[in-house]
Amino acid sequence: MNEHPFIAGDWGTTRLRLSLCKGERILDTRSGPGISALTAPPAETVTALTAEWVATHGALPVVLCGMAGSRNGWKETPYVPCPADSASLRRALVRFEAEDLRVSIVPGVSCRNRLGAPDVMRGEETQIVGALALRPDLGIGDKLLCLPGTHTKWVWVEDGAMRHFLTAMTGELFALLRDHSMLARAGTGGSGAGDGFERGLAIDAALGPASLTHALFAARSRQLIDGASKDWALAFISGLLVGSDVRGAIELFGSPREVILIGDPALTDLYVRALRPGRVDTVPLDGGACSLAGLRALAATH
Amino acid sequence: MNEHPFIAGDWGTTRLRLSLCKGERILDTRSGPGISALTAPPAETVTALTAEWVATHGALPVVLCGMAGSRNGWKETPYVPCPADSASLRRALVRFEAEDLRVSIVPGVSCRNRLGAPDVMRGEETQIVGALALRPDLGIGDKLLCLPGTHTKWVWVEDGAMRHFLTAMTGELFALLRDHSMLARAGTGGSGAGDGFERGLAIDAALGPASLTHALFAARSRQLIDGASKDWALAFISGLLVGSDVRGAIELFGSPREVILIGDPALTDLYVRALRPGRVDTVPLDGGACSLAGLRALAATH
Repeated sequence: MNEHPFIAGDWGTTRLRLSLCKGERILDTRSGPGISALTAPPAETVTALTAEWVATHGALPVVLCGMAGSRNGWKETPYVPCPADSASLRRALVRFEAEDLRVSIVPGVSCRNRLGAPDVMRGEETQIVGALALRPDLGIGDKLLCLPGTHTKWVWVEDGAMRHFLTAMTGELFALLRDHSMLARAGTGGSGAGDGFERGLAIDAALGPASLTHALFAARSRQLIDGASKDWALAFISGLLVGSDVRGAIELFGSPREVILIGDPALTDLYVRALRPGRVDTVPLDGGACSLAGLRALAATH
Repeated sequence: MNEHPFIAGDWGTTRLRLSLCKGERILDTRSGPGISALTAPPAETVTALTAEWVATHGALPVVLCGMAGSRNGWKETPYVPCPADSASLRRALVRFEAEDLRVSIVPGVSCRNRLGAPDVMRGEETQIVGALALRPDLGIGDKLLCLPGTHTKWVWVEDGAMRHFLTAMTGELFALLRDHSMLARAGTGGSGAGDGFERGLAIDAALGPASLTHALFAARSRQLIDGASKDWALAFISGLLVGSDVRGAIELFGSPREVILIGDPALTDLYVRALRPGRVDTVPLDGGACSLAGLRALAATH
């Protein structure tokens, strides 16, 4: 284990989270702007946020995952093609110095997915390394992992190595429909989500290939005709989207009996509810804890 | 035929189109703001736009379809439940006077759709009445009509009466993904749509129930990894959405051999291309001409 202090950072599109760590302990944390909201160059942003820690502990290693390595990030890191595991990610860390910081950026991972298209991730690979560090049993045999989010990732892992994965637009579609579509305009109905999510799930399951495009409009028409609330409509849309995501992925990945869910508990819970009717067992793991464990595992070579 | 002059109007969310008609002839036209962009009360808007016509011809009848009859329109008109035809729509016209105008607003139509959800249309019913007026052969037997747009309508017509229909979010989903998602951000690729639409169609056909949610991300990853252009990505998204719409609808409506397409030619052409591989015959009709013919047919009782 690494017993010198180090900084673990998850730099997403909308937020930077930095943790000063020593072994298993978190000594302190800082938050900063995401890659898409930077007001100063990345180096300045990080050195300013960590100046106090450097003043106390001297020069420090920093390990960053996520959009830090994207084309518009701090320093572009090439994608590591599948199969990828913690060893190949560690070898591909991009290292450089920025004043008193010894920076390592974790590369993203690429593959050809089950639909024959190129696919990419940045950040999720670190959460997967972390999940395998926290739960070594997950590194034995074939596992299907699901990381719900703006771009949900379904990842096939064999003996601890990512073999291929598939991105679903579930979270981004939900946000687009919630924020910009006419489906979720406030209606005359009351409030409360009621059975919206379950109704969305059930309709999706009954639909077969007719799918999303045709089922979505009911979010609006049930407000107009049946007096459903806006909250109900949003929950219904969420149920349709998560249901469609789960149903398609389970089929594409050969109907596995268990799915490891990594993410925010409020989000992984929706996937637990969508997977239950198909009798798929679920193992939910906290996304933040996995991210930190992954950065710690990848930092351990410093 | 109605040989006195009358005004035919299609009042959509984004635009008002008024035509001064006499029999088959259009004597003059005016454009105004859509229902969602009104800066003055509806009555003032219409009387101002038609003042010159009234000055020439005296008091005039006006027949309006579309959002004029919605809750936030000029005067709310209740939906006519299916089965609905030109006679039941004519009986349900909402009539009132506004200065020198004798206004009739065409009601929308409602049904329970094939997915068991309530469904509604406003404006398309008038285009269907018009299509049946222009092409009386379409009023004999069972016909599947498709009116592509922001909310594409698939309408089952038996002997000239609408029996039930289904709304697909195809156009609105495309606009959301084009204007607000990260899928269509300008990449480093060149320009031109290339084979994007056909690739989208083909992927959708191969997918089965996995569908949209999982296939969409390739619009982004092919820009990142394969250097595809933004135009290609948009055409690909369009192919996926139209393909998914057509495949689902054809199955829900019992695999008909022919589809009557009513709309803007640029849009109906996409549906012709999507229906061709399934050997479904198509009959494209111009949406504007159908709208006007429908208003003329409904005005004929004045």
